[in-house]
Amino acid sequence: MRFTLPDIPSIDDAALLAQLQHKLDRKTAPLGALGALALLARQIGQILGSLQPRLREPQLLVFAADHGIAARGVSAYPSDVTWQMVGNFLAGGAAVSVLARQHGITQTVVDCGVRRDFAPAEGLLIRKIAHGTADSSLGPAMDAGQCERALVNGMQIVRALPGNALLLGEMGIGNTSAATLLVAQLTGIKMVDVVGAGTGLDAQGLLHKAAVLREALAANVRAAEPLQALAAFGGFEIATMVGAVLQAASERRVIVVDGFIAGSAVLVATQLAPAALQRCVFAHRSDERGHARLLQWLGVQPLLDLGLRLGEGSGAALAWPLLQSACLILDEMASFESAGVSDKSPGFSTPA
Amino acid sequence: MRFTLPDIPSIDDAALLAQLQHKLDRKTAPLGALGALALLARQIGQILGSLQPRLREPQLLVFAADHGIAARGVSAYPSDVTWQMVGNFLAGGAAVSVLARQHGITQTVVDCGVRRDFAPAEGLLIRKIAHGTADSSLGPAMDAGQCERALVNGMQIVRALPGNALLLGEMGIGNTSAATLLVAQLTGIKMVDVVGAGTGLDAQGLLHKAAVLREALAANVRAAEPLQALAAFGGFEIATMVGAVLQAASERRVIVVDGFIAGSAVLVATQLAPAALQRCVFAHRSDERGHARLLQWLGVQPLLDLGLRLGEGSGAALAWPLLQSACLILDEMASFESAGVSDKSPGFSTPA
Repeated sequence: MRFTLPDIPSIDDAALLAQLQHKLDRKTAPLGALGALALLARQIGQILGSLQPRLREPQLLVFAADHGIAARGVSAYPSDVTWQMVGNFLAGGAAVSVLARQHGITQTVVDCGVRRDFAPAEGLLIRKIAHGTADSSLGPAMDAGQCERALVNGMQIVRALPGNALLLGEMGIGNTSAATLLVAQLTGIKMVDVVGAGTGLDAQGLLHKAAVLREALAANVRAAEPLQALAAFGGFEIATMVGAVLQAASERRVIVVDGFIAGSAVLVATQLAPAALQRCVFAHRSDERGHARLLQWLGVQPLLDLGLRLGEGSGAALAWPLLQSACLILDEMASFESAGVSDKSPGFSTPA
Repeated sequence: MRFTLPDIPSIDDAALLAQLQHKLDRKTAPLGALGALALLARQIGQILGSLQPRLREPQLLVFAADHGIAARGVSAYPSDVTWQMVGNFLAGGAAVSVLARQHGITQTVVDCGVRRDFAPAEGLLIRKIAHGTADSSLGPAMDAGQCERALVNGMQIVRALPGNALLLGEMGIGNTSAATLLVAQLTGIKMVDVVGAGTGLDAQGLLHKAAVLREALAANVRAAEPLQALAAFGGFEIATMVGAVLQAASERRVIVVDGFIAGSAVLVATQLAPAALQRCVFAHRSDERGHARLLQWLGVQPLLDLGLRLGEGSGAALAWPLLQSACLILDEMASFESAGVSDKSPGFSTPA
């Protein structure tokens, strides 16, 4: 099945925006006092096209895959951790599983290309492209057909999901390397300013990782277009996530972006369809070095800044109640008029 | 009834801390990847003295009172907004009411000294010291007896509360002035570096506010000790909150500190009993100018930074799910051993 970019028009609607802003401005709070919460309410209102947006049946997808480049020793953990963590997600013991359960978010793991085969299990979708990508330090991580299949998988998965909100998570030993390469290639930010410690490399390990990533950039020098870069650097979980973001954006779902890896998928998606960015809520600023640079490049402000560098969608799940709060503020908070509270007035004088 | 400082010993427990740290380090996440969430889990574990801390029946108190200094035009809103907002809290329409409801937090409003009398109502405690403080630009906002009564009120209120967590909120037109004066007097930070726009003063209004606060500092120059400063600058809601913080700390409740005003009460409390700070979780960094300085002076890191400047306890309520997440991480998240996930090992090599 061929990948076709879905239609993702701008959701700018000046009339709705003005109504949302007016509604927020009349809430019983000094003008601007709700800070980022008001901006979030406005954004969700625009995405869902409503003055009274309601988030329904949030879905967190954990896209999992392995990376050929991991064989080069770019991660502090062995590749086996990818399939082991899939087991941990399915058993409900991973951080993101705990947080999703806390907030009533449905967690689904997607095997996009883990190096081990799984028995069918509840909460697991098997959409494996291959047993891990090829080593991008030697050439493309995947071929164009594989990349296309992963994109289509992501779109189909989201099409079948209930609800109106998608939280992005991932697992894949080596995937900060893939994300770093994508960000460097597509933004023009120097790779050395993006590369970070991932799951916990020491200084020596970080130098080695940077050297390997330099090889990967050299081995894929012609991969300039977003989909070429995606195929060149991988991974299958990122490509599947790009498809999921595009489909979710076309359906005007609220997309909650986790950390650096999810951010790299959003980067690819927004280079294909810039208006997809309007549907993205950035959950947090990760401690992974390249993430702050990526957020800055995208021109977005994350909700949380808790020094997390865990991935999995853990930051997205942690931020979720803030999205619910934003909707409740729009829906349930009183206005100056309805509550009979005096507004600030120019030249007021306090009662004697 | 006389105010007596309750016993607030240090909760440092090296053995428990080591156990908490070990438990967190064995969770299925790279070392340090849980960031501030792990620090929060450790702190709550220490406060509640448990490797498996559970937060029970969270109580949010909104301390409300009026300020004599408001007559000097230091706020963008009239004093009447204080009692009007009390009505809004009781009706469930204020931001904090919406957020408390979202998270199953019990909201109670405490009339510590509002300039209007309220009929008894559910969710309202009447602990009125007077109909607003005196104008601190002319002399002390309250006398020592009033201050003492407010402190005792705060202690008694907390003593009667169920649960093991206290969230601090407040309402009082003019109370950023009182908080600014307290912070300037007790920390030595220059008043002009602390004073801010409150509910939304313009540049002219801010200059006027600073001039009035300068008068108040001059009128109370001998109020050097914490309780003297508290009486000198007020307000009744801050003094009652100081008592509440001290009692909660002595009972080892988790204290969730909202913004600048609540922070000023914690400042007074920790000057009386430094170990009270160990029980405080700082919910957010407010947009009110002095708050970042105060947090820095206290040497603490807040959880959220959302540009809020609303008070009421809204930031505390927004941060609440993060405290719950921290406890769930300790309780429900798998360890490397229990999940059968490979840990990072020095000198590992990836499978071929």
